[in-house]
Amino acid sequence: MKGNVIIGQSGGPTAVINSSLAGIIKAARVNGAEKIYGMHHGIEGFLKEDIIDIGDYIVEDSDLALLKRTPSAFLGSCRYKLPEINGHEDVYEKMFEIMEKYNIEYFFYIGGNDSMDTIKALSDYALAHDKTQRFVGVPKTIDNDLPITDHTPGYGSAAKFIATMMKEVIRDNESFGASKPTICVVEIMGRHAGWLTAAAALSKGDDCSGPDLIYLPEIPFDMDDFLARVKVLAETKSSVVIAVSEGIALADGRFVCELGGGADYVDAFGHKQLSGCATVLTQRIADVTGCKTRAIEFSTLQRCSTHMASRTDIDEAYNCGYSAFKAAQRGDTGVMVVMRVPDREVYTVSYETFDIHEIANVEKKIPREWITKDGTYVNERYLKYASPLILGALTPYFTRGLPKHLTLKNKKK
Amino acid sequence: MKGNVIIGQSGGPTAVINSSLAGIIKAARVNGAEKIYGMHHGIEGFLKEDIIDIGDYIVEDSDLALLKRTPSAFLGSCRYKLPEINGHEDVYEKMFEIMEKYNIEYFFYIGGNDSMDTIKALSDYALAHDKTQRFVGVPKTIDNDLPITDHTPGYGSAAKFIATMMKEVIRDNESFGASKPTICVVEIMGRHAGWLTAAAALSKGDDCSGPDLIYLPEIPFDMDDFLARVKVLAETKSSVVIAVSEGIALADGRFVCELGGGADYVDAFGHKQLSGCATVLTQRIADVTGCKTRAIEFSTLQRCSTHMASRTDIDEAYNCGYSAFKAAQRGDTGVMVVMRVPDREVYTVSYETFDIHEIANVEKKIPREWITKDGTYVNERYLKYASPLILGALTPYFTRGLPKHLTLKNKKK
Repeated sequence: MKGNVIIGQSGGPTAVINSSLAGIIKAARVNGAEKIYGMHHGIEGFLKEDIIDIGDYIVEDSDLALLKRTPSAFLGSCRYKLPEINGHEDVYEKMFEIMEKYNIEYFFYIGGNDSMDTIKALSDYALAHDKTQRFVGVPKTIDNDLPITDHTPGYGSAAKFIATMMKEVIRDNESFGASKPTICVVEIMGRHAGWLTAAAALSKGDDCSGPDLIYLPEIPFDMDDFLARVKVLAETKSSVVIAVSEGIALADGRFVCELGGGADYVDAFGHKQLSGCATVLTQRIADVTGCKTRAIEFSTLQRCSTHMASRTDIDEAYNCGYSAFKAAQRGDTGVMVVMRVPDREVYTVSYETFDIHEIANVEKKIPREWITKDGTYVNERYLKYASPLILGALTPYFTRGLPKHLTLKNKKK
Repeated sequence: MKGNVIIGQSGGPTAVINSSLAGIIKAARVNGAEKIYGMHHGIEGFLKEDIIDIGDYIVEDSDLALLKRTPSAFLGSCRYKLPEINGHEDVYEKMFEIMEKYNIEYFFYIGGNDSMDTIKALSDYALAHDKTQRFVGVPKTIDNDLPITDHTPGYGSAAKFIATMMKEVIRDNESFGASKPTICVVEIMGRHAGWLTAAAALSKGDDCSGPDLIYLPEIPFDMDDFLARVKVLAETKSSVVIAVSEGIALADGRFVCELGGGADYVDAFGHKQLSGCATVLTQRIADVTGCKTRAIEFSTLQRCSTHMASRTDIDEAYNCGYSAFKAAQRGDTGVMVVMRVPDREVYTVSYETFDIHEIANVEKKIPREWITKDGTYVNERYLKYASPLILGALTPYFTRGLPKHLTLKNKKK
């Protein structure tokens, strides 16, 4: 093959973002790539020519196996949005100069919604300026909010962690309650889409009653109705556990977390960082029921718990990376790899590519018909969709009793 | 053997409290116990004669294997302190009537500091009234704050979970920081003793730099010194992660969590429930450094994460339970099982018993000489002590992609 490869990772990390990296590296090596570079901290590092030779760190297949077991972005991530091409041609010219300097013909970016904008802008610029480089996006987000693809790598592992912890938290909460129930509110990530919070429902089974209520940002939150339901549960059950999305909001648009408590700040993409709605709700619940309450935030644990990753997710993330390389090799550019699932009973996946213009900055939410009529749970349709995504495990490599990771500190050459 | 067995679980659950239960059950069966009863929700349930026949749920060794993999108190727990004997003889008479009704000669209570008070009171009453029942305590607490015993079952698994999550959180935090560091404060359980927070130091190794600072409740917290240290770290590092105990307090005795934010309430034992010091600290840090901050609370996840339990801890918890039965069988009463560790290099444990009067209501803290001089980390002595306790894993039984548990819903008979 002609030219070198560069790979970047962007946005909030996941438990399997490094499996996609492993897939691209393996495919590039199998196909004779001479040099495989990594952007240190995504496009933000690339602009500063902060570039890593991946061959200094990853030499053998056993390194790739460890990379798959390493949480978070091995190469470092960023939250950096490229400027519009119009009026910022100098930025783009500089980027293509760097690519030419390193003889880069294959450019891969593993990321979510905002990151796919980078692939769009670079491939648009390349086409308009007769550049030969190919730009392919690899989907990655625990939020599962990318369109076209059936689901996103990272979601299955986050869902598995959430469902596992939910089972354990429910068991913990059920320990007490001999006289009065403890009411526990678990806050799960998700600004506008409830995919992660819905995963709490996967905990339900023979050995677990699941959360009592699930509130998603897709449905306007009715505080009075909520407190009335919790009051009934508190009077009839010895343990009450409720899953809520960080992004739940009242019908008038105010976020529940803004009703008291949690600190607010805005990230580099202009997203308001939300947290604290569980604390707000437990205070209201304590006032209404007099029961002991507990607010739990799964926080970033949801996106970095590779020790509880889904094997299905790890394999799919790897295959997405591998397929991205194959797509670039056959000449695709300005595309993202998408997964199709023709069958959910005999679960099968195919890997295709799709025009990046239809994907960047579009957000996929949970269909209304997958949520119960009263808006307080997800139904069988969601369970059928999500159940295959959490199957299987990949045992960590343990040293000194702890999962071992591959890091940029562990240079081999 | 003569008479039946009853077992209770009490206080905050752990990842291995059910392994101790499994050990007692196995020992009782091996020694020919006819009936093994469980108190539903500890002594609180016992007083209401809420008693379970364990044989209805646990029949085969495979049930015991699943019990070991089940987090939280299988029998249900409670936070219930028996009244003084003096003036409440009726309560004690009633309890012994229930024991006689069920022909109970062996009484085991798995719990921490407060729970050992129950063994003390009951064995004192029995001796004073010529009762034949034997009362043996089995240590259990993630807090590791029981005296005499080298460490407590439950601590090793909590420490393993904390160190594992700390590694994953540090990797997550290191992803960013291309321009400015994110400063993450992780709040870990521990009111007066810093054993759990100290476990964050176990994350440090070839592949992880560990947290930058560790603050324990044993050392008065100096806010100015803290902020000065964080400011220097923020100026020199691309990622800063700090571990703090929920119970850190200023020299004047005010808890850091009381300086703003967190809700306060008092539990049934009169303990103030602490939370929110990470939020207080991140707000101060943001003001001083202008960096993005993140507060994470491990919350109850620390005590229920059986999916990441230490095999060493599981085995020791089981052996403590087994030894408790053997102690009762040879006539011991008014004692708790304690672990001795004669050698930490070739790690060996012996199981003995100790007078409950020296144990109940006494709290063990981290020795000052195990903490660095400046009070911001633990040293090699702690690491030598704790490292063996987190070794080994016990793979969960998975169904539908999630760890399977044994519950009181799964009645066999």
